[in-house]
Amino acid sequence: MSGNFLALAQPGVQQLSPYVPGKPVDELARELNLDPSQIVKLASNENPLGPSPKVVAAIREELAELTRYPDGNGFALKSLLASKCRVELDQVTLGNGSNDILELVGRAYLAPGLNAVFSEHAFAVYPIVTQAVGADARVIPAKDWGHDLPAMLAAIDAQTRVVFIANPNNPTGTWFDEQALNEFLQDVPEHVLVVLDEAYIEYAEGSDLPDGLDFLAAYPNLLVSRTFSKAYGLASLRVGYGLSTAVVADVLNRVRQPFNVNSLALAAACAAVKDAEYLEEGRRINESGMLQLQEGFRELGLGWIPSKGNFICVDLGQVAAPVFQGLLREGVIVRPVANYGMPNHLRITIGLPAENSRFLEALAKVLARG
Amino acid sequence: MSGNFLALAQPGVQQLSPYVPGKPVDELARELNLDPSQIVKLASNENPLGPSPKVVAAIREELAELTRYPDGNGFALKSLLASKCRVELDQVTLGNGSNDILELVGRAYLAPGLNAVFSEHAFAVYPIVTQAVGADARVIPAKDWGHDLPAMLAAIDAQTRVVFIANPNNPTGTWFDEQALNEFLQDVPEHVLVVLDEAYIEYAEGSDLPDGLDFLAAYPNLLVSRTFSKAYGLASLRVGYGLSTAVVADVLNRVRQPFNVNSLALAAACAAVKDAEYLEEGRRINESGMLQLQEGFRELGLGWIPSKGNFICVDLGQVAAPVFQGLLREGVIVRPVANYGMPNHLRITIGLPAENSRFLEALAKVLARG
Repeated sequence: MSGNFLALAQPGVQQLSPYVPGKPVDELARELNLDPSQIVKLASNENPLGPSPKVVAAIREELAELTRYPDGNGFALKSLLASKCRVELDQVTLGNGSNDILELVGRAYLAPGLNAVFSEHAFAVYPIVTQAVGADARVIPAKDWGHDLPAMLAAIDAQTRVVFIANPNNPTGTWFDEQALNEFLQDVPEHVLVVLDEAYIEYAEGSDLPDGLDFLAAYPNLLVSRTFSKAYGLASLRVGYGLSTAVVADVLNRVRQPFNVNSLALAAACAAVKDAEYLEEGRRINESGMLQLQEGFRELGLGWIPSKGNFICVDLGQVAAPVFQGLLREGVIVRPVANYGMPNHLRITIGLPAENSRFLEALAKVLARG
Repeated sequence: MSGNFLALAQPGVQQLSPYVPGKPVDELARELNLDPSQIVKLASNENPLGPSPKVVAAIREELAELTRYPDGNGFALKSLLASKCRVELDQVTLGNGSNDILELVGRAYLAPGLNAVFSEHAFAVYPIVTQAVGADARVIPAKDWGHDLPAMLAAIDAQTRVVFIANPNNPTGTWFDEQALNEFLQDVPEHVLVVLDEAYIEYAEGSDLPDGLDFLAAYPNLLVSRTFSKAYGLASLRVGYGLSTAVVADVLNRVRQPFNVNSLALAAACAAVKDAEYLEEGRRINESGMLQLQEGFRELGLGWIPSKGNFICVDLGQVAAPVFQGLLREGVIVRPVANYGMPNHLRITIGLPAENSRFLEALAKVLARG
């Protein structure tokens, strides 16, 4: 047998195309010889507020313990989350970002011959974790850019083990209401794990989006996935969590790496959970920034997809790639979504008022150039 | 089909027994109502020096960027490692600890029907990553507590895809020399990836252990795995790396999570790589502590396994579990290794001189009680 280590890799792995992240500020600065402090990045749905002082203080306190392994069981953080989310400690799974949770589900429940159902224009990590274990992806056409839940339901068969749904959805920002979720959960066969990805739910609270936690008790095949990377502002540290029955959590906890979440992430997340003020300020900034961008799009005669996240997809009515490139040259990084089947859109993270203005001015300039 | 989510998990996953970490100080303090500052933990091969000031400074500088995603490509750290390890940038894979590297290998190259070869008394993560993907583990009896490389070679067949070897080995501290490694690598079939786990190599430099990096150019089926958790003192942050051909690195980089290593770990590791002084001091402390423990064991009439790591396995000549429990009651945490097939041994991490003394006194006391 030859030593071709690409051919020797598992078939699913050989076909993997890695996730394409938002362009880092330093990379653009290197490429265009720009001052990094002059670059505006609205590409990765990061929290524009910068870190909470309470979180920074919690991390500083932990620095003396750098040489020690993290608490692999994450006792302190799990306790806080269990109490906040009205579940038992053994229903919580901690992840190295919610990406880790999605991957643990794939590794535990998917394999060649089995399939996962998810929507067109949904998060790129769903196909990646499905492909990585050699399972089939059933991608269901979207309806008005959002999930077509009845069609997703109809696509489930005996080989389906996982359905990924996101509320609100990334990158489109679309959402479904409580009645739609309830009807869906009622009809999903009990052998199918429903992963409800609520990475952006904190931006949608109080709106007509359901709270996934309200459905955990009634549906033992439901896992709600959440993250500290968005509204809690901890993208750099990698911490997310899954809430499910204790059985599912036990399985995921067997599969996860023993020290998957680092100590500073654990300490930071504990501080973040208690920091209601930061969350509230983030929501306010997001709400006004969303209106600011919509007003800007209106003035430019552009459409957009209504969004409940901290981002919005603008419809340029033309292929977006050249506009994306033009924005880069203006020092503004946004997110192209052609790889999500949306070649005419760009996804813009809601920034601070000044960042939103910089983006809108740059966009007007680039569009005027034609 | 029923909704039994243990039965629905992949067969390999159903059989998984999670890794058992060293007992955390806080947990013992809670259980025995002890003052945590009075507890000595010599259980997880952590660096007793505490964090390097240069590392702490590098982390503090990064705190303003907490809300941003890490550089998923780890450009700065990979550049430093490539230069230090005399390889190209595309030969480096970064991991969330070297545990992540070991797991990526399992997920890329193992599957049901294939097997991995490793030694008895070797690191617990090798069987875990093998089992998690449903592959077979071929555990080869140890020779004088160390790897029997010729026997491991003989166990390789057409279904073998990975051999895990560790130098020095954890938990035994045993090692093999350059000639043994060379003969082994020459005879391993080219379709088998040899994972040379050098988690503790920095403690063995200048001794008769080979440097795995010297073999990379000659053996395209070699991957050297290293970590920042031990000699570099960054266990809390989770950062390790693999060095291999660019082909193997490409495969592992497809499988890894896009942001598997967090930003503070990246910044800390960059500072640590350049901090030769910290490494040197750690080695000095380790060398004198090793002699201190051996002298103590000699006085107690106890044998031990000679070790090139920052730990040593003492032979109690009796079942070790009650002694381990007795030490806990004295506020000293060491590592039982019965789950490694070594019921009469305890593994002791080399601590600071005062910690080693505390341990030796407690051990004398517990043994005297009978």
